[in-house]
Amino acid sequence: MELLDKLVDGDPRALARSITLVEEGLKGADELMRRVYPRTGQATVIGLTGSPGSGKSSLVDRLVTEARSRDRKVGVVAIDPSSAFSGGAILGDRIRMQDHAKDEGVFIRSMATRGHLGGLSRATSDAIDLMDAAGYDPILVETVGVGQDEIEVVRAADVVAVVLVPGMGDDIQAIKAGILEIADLFVINKADRPGADRLQAELDYMMSLISSDGKPKPEILQTVAVRNEGVKELLDGVLRFAESAAGRRRERRHERAHARFLAVLSERLLASALTRALPDDRLEKLVDDLAERRIDPYTGVEQVMKQVLS
Amino acid sequence: MELLDKLVDGDPRALARSITLVEEGLKGADELMRRVYPRTGQATVIGLTGSPGSGKSSLVDRLVTEARSRDRKVGVVAIDPSSAFSGGAILGDRIRMQDHAKDEGVFIRSMATRGHLGGLSRATSDAIDLMDAAGYDPILVETVGVGQDEIEVVRAADVVAVVLVPGMGDDIQAIKAGILEIADLFVINKADRPGADRLQAELDYMMSLISSDGKPKPEILQTVAVRNEGVKELLDGVLRFAESAAGRRRERRHERAHARFLAVLSERLLASALTRALPDDRLEKLVDDLAERRIDPYTGVEQVMKQVLS
Repeated sequence: MELLDKLVDGDPRALARSITLVEEGLKGADELMRRVYPRTGQATVIGLTGSPGSGKSSLVDRLVTEARSRDRKVGVVAIDPSSAFSGGAILGDRIRMQDHAKDEGVFIRSMATRGHLGGLSRATSDAIDLMDAAGYDPILVETVGVGQDEIEVVRAADVVAVVLVPGMGDDIQAIKAGILEIADLFVINKADRPGADRLQAELDYMMSLISSDGKPKPEILQTVAVRNEGVKELLDGVLRFAESAAGRRRERRHERAHARFLAVLSERLLASALTRALPDDRLEKLVDDLAERRIDPYTGVEQVMKQVLS
Repeated sequence: MELLDKLVDGDPRALARSITLVEEGLKGADELMRRVYPRTGQATVIGLTGSPGSGKSSLVDRLVTEARSRDRKVGVVAIDPSSAFSGGAILGDRIRMQDHAKDEGVFIRSMATRGHLGGLSRATSDAIDLMDAAGYDPILVETVGVGQDEIEVVRAADVVAVVLVPGMGDDIQAIKAGILEIADLFVINKADRPGADRLQAELDYMMSLISSDGKPKPEILQTVAVRNEGVKELLDGVLRFAESAAGRRRERRHERAHARFLAVLSERLLASALTRALPDDRLEKLVDDLAERRIDPYTGVEQVMKQVLS
């Protein structure tokens, strides 16, 4: 398989093509993933999430530069809210990443949160595996939104850094409720703003309230990404965590394998069931009946299940 | 079915119990939904989404009061980012809604974004149907987060109001990229702040850029929820839209029926496949093999598919 050979050789074009192939479920995608799989599991996957406005993109940009200075090839998966309007990644921040555009040691891929058959999580796992097989390590996974999908994706990383920023309103910080518990490490970015130390104290207090089920209290680091302050320490911190016993690397990979298996299985089962039980315009007709309340969804599902399951 | 009778009679306790029954997939849930379904499709479902900090909760609170003053029973489904830490809804804003706690004409239910087998979208549809059958109309669906899941849920409403607020940074407004196109109507809340008119002009311009595929340009309304300004006009606006030809009510219901059918089918197929092909600890063992790279997920999935499909 020529594509696989080039990918493993580290050819960025082959990597880009492979991701597209798999993302769009084109012919050869399954075979490629099958053959790539044994070559994966090498890279450290670093998840970054946090409130909008916390400067995650700048931080990722600086982390990439820092990792490059250590002679590592770096992969970035940016999970972006997508829009038919903008056709994908929209943030001006992303433009900054173009500093790395000519560096073959940096591979950046935006994943839209919409339009992935089988879900964002499956598509992201595939992209990570492909980067991993191509020798990128670490791989940074950055989310722009903070919805459940994004949280599911980022929590599968080997280490999860949650980025916060001092002085945002309570309503905005409330977002973090859903992401507090997935943090292995907190980053207070824009730490030159007033309130950084207060935020650190609050976080420290909140984390002490969480019953820890043996998980160590997350480290809290301060950064000022735009001035490159604390970035080296952050990269050291996340890599140290990922390698440590506390990092639960094995456990995370187990969780990731579990979630991914279910995602792929679910996607394939649904596609097969629809093809077999509701070919041509039969799905459309059933939906008409559902919308007009001539049949209820639970009865409709039961009928399909009877037809397709052995 | 006693529960169904009480539900249709408008007993709030029966409604609460029904939602829990269905949400947790307990015995009798399918039968209940089957029998409820023909009684649904009456209520107008109003989706509200928007940036964190835009004051959606206050707005919902005021809309509830306004609808009550028109002698309508009002249902509220609040989609909250969930946390094991807080155990569900966490916003202090939610407390304000307790003004309505003693009013039997208002039924409020928080749905956590996590832990719904078969997804948030399915669970929310069920809750809406149950409220609908119990005579609540309108039903407001409010999201706190702006992730893909939340967008999917809210876009299924008969009318979608997107709430924005003047003077937030570009990064925060960037969130709206994913939700711009689902807006039937924009609300500029906190419109007494500087920049409201500029935001209105910007929105107006952006919407004029979107190729409309026949959809009319969304109306833009200004409100100051905390002072109850513009709330009556907002309720009129959303109800007018939902009833209008532009409202595409039929189309939306079709979309909703479609999404829901797929969600339920997907959930049931996966559950059946796992029970049949990977009983006891066999899933666990397979995941071990996957995590250790002894087998790849695509091969694993293929094996299960062969076993369960007829």
